[in-house]
Amino acid sequence: MAAIALVQGASRGLGLQFCKHILTSRKEAMVIATCRRPAQAGALQALLAEFPQNLAVYQLDATREAEVRQAVEAVAKDYGHLDLLLNCGAILHPSGRGETSLRDVSAEGLSITLATNSIGPLLVAKHFTPLLLNGTGAFGRQNIDPDKKHQALLVNMTAKVGSIGDNALGGWYSYRMSKAALNMATKNLSIELRRGKAKVVCVSLHPGTVDTDLSKPYHKNVPKGKLFSPEYSVNCLMHIIDKLDMEQTGKFFAWDGSELPW
Amino acid sequence: MAAIALVQGASRGLGLQFCKHILTSRKEAMVIATCRRPAQAGALQALLAEFPQNLAVYQLDATREAEVRQAVEAVAKDYGHLDLLLNCGAILHPSGRGETSLRDVSAEGLSITLATNSIGPLLVAKHFTPLLLNGTGAFGRQNIDPDKKHQALLVNMTAKVGSIGDNALGGWYSYRMSKAALNMATKNLSIELRRGKAKVVCVSLHPGTVDTDLSKPYHKNVPKGKLFSPEYSVNCLMHIIDKLDMEQTGKFFAWDGSELPW
Repeated sequence: MAAIALVQGASRGLGLQFCKHILTSRKEAMVIATCRRPAQAGALQALLAEFPQNLAVYQLDATREAEVRQAVEAVAKDYGHLDLLLNCGAILHPSGRGETSLRDVSAEGLSITLATNSIGPLLVAKHFTPLLLNGTGAFGRQNIDPDKKHQALLVNMTAKVGSIGDNALGGWYSYRMSKAALNMATKNLSIELRRGKAKVVCVSLHPGTVDTDLSKPYHKNVPKGKLFSPEYSVNCLMHIIDKLDMEQTGKFFAWDGSELPW
Repeated sequence: MAAIALVQGASRGLGLQFCKHILTSRKEAMVIATCRRPAQAGALQALLAEFPQNLAVYQLDATREAEVRQAVEAVAKDYGHLDLLLNCGAILHPSGRGETSLRDVSAEGLSITLATNSIGPLLVAKHFTPLLLNGTGAFGRQNIDPDKKHQALLVNMTAKVGSIGDNALGGWYSYRMSKAALNMATKNLSIELRRGKAKVVCVSLHPGTVDTDLSKPYHKNVPKGKLFSPEYSVNCLMHIIDKLDMEQTGKFFAWDGSELPW
């Protein structure tokens, strides 16, 4: 049975790069890419033309529970299980700019950012959990101990700015709060999905500062050599993902493998 | 000039008890109590009848930014400053029950809980900040060093179950995520409100497991001696608040004064 990965938020940035990386590095793998508007996702459509046998694109707005349910039904019918779920969909703020100070904080900005970055990924995790529990353990590193073999991996892309303990600069209220909330969701998922027969490795990952649309307004502030290409960041992150087992569940890792504080 | 405290979410539970405690222990203090429906807040109205000179009740739904602005205008006009802001308004979940597992997680439950517990308190903090910056430092412990004297205290009531690092049991997705997000807000506020001339001490506090409407469904699970009365919890918390200065800003304390992990 093929290794099956689902990438939520795959139209661009890290999500798109995860699709490319898996398709080119694991010829037998099947990648399910989801995004809100597939027809407008040009780069993803180009990837689909290149890998028509191994890539499938599904329309999914993670904040709409009915759409998540529909996507799960389709994936269940077509594939029956998932080995890796990557939650990549995120926004910095609806304005495109993180809040510099309280003056920029608004109920609407907070609400939309929390819906996209925290609620959406948890709804996707919830509804795809039955498929993860049915996984074949094709991603990550399998433990020799049969009692510790995992069924699947669940990765929430968060960010170091979502670490409360690491926060020294402030600002970016909506984004920081949304990623702290998602880190809590990761921790909760790791506890629920190791109970009884469940063995799903759940982690949060920090990709570094990556050259994507989300970070574009801030590139001039990034020290030389610290702005990663999506290729470099995803190479590093897949290196971590390839080594994940149940010993790592519930943790928060940076692109270089170091563990981050909550 | 009188010491002025504002308690957001004062109709019951800890918020109500904070009002009682301040009114009875500091005869000169003025307490501004806010809640969504003052006309239906019987216990708060009874307190108002007892302390008509020192208690004022304002209608405020913290999730509605226009209402927060109106309340700020009224308080600014009537009092001109604030010395202590206590964000107490919170729900466990719109259903009254925390999620036991993913099965209970819903977009609506998450959204309402995050709005009430995370977005509301931050909007209140944002709009009352000018009054806090105008504070007289009448609450907390003033540092001898004039450069470290604070203008006011901003306290967000969170909870130990909002600590990601301490989370060993899982469940209560919405509540835990909302309190982790509010802890991040506390940290951000502490950084912004110590810049330049700003000296506002910002902390998160954990009240213990307290006998309130929020915790009522879970009382039978609480070990003997661990279910606090609101009186006991608020006594302990005011003991911490009375000692706060700029050295403590950005931290997360439990009712017994111990510092909690994020």
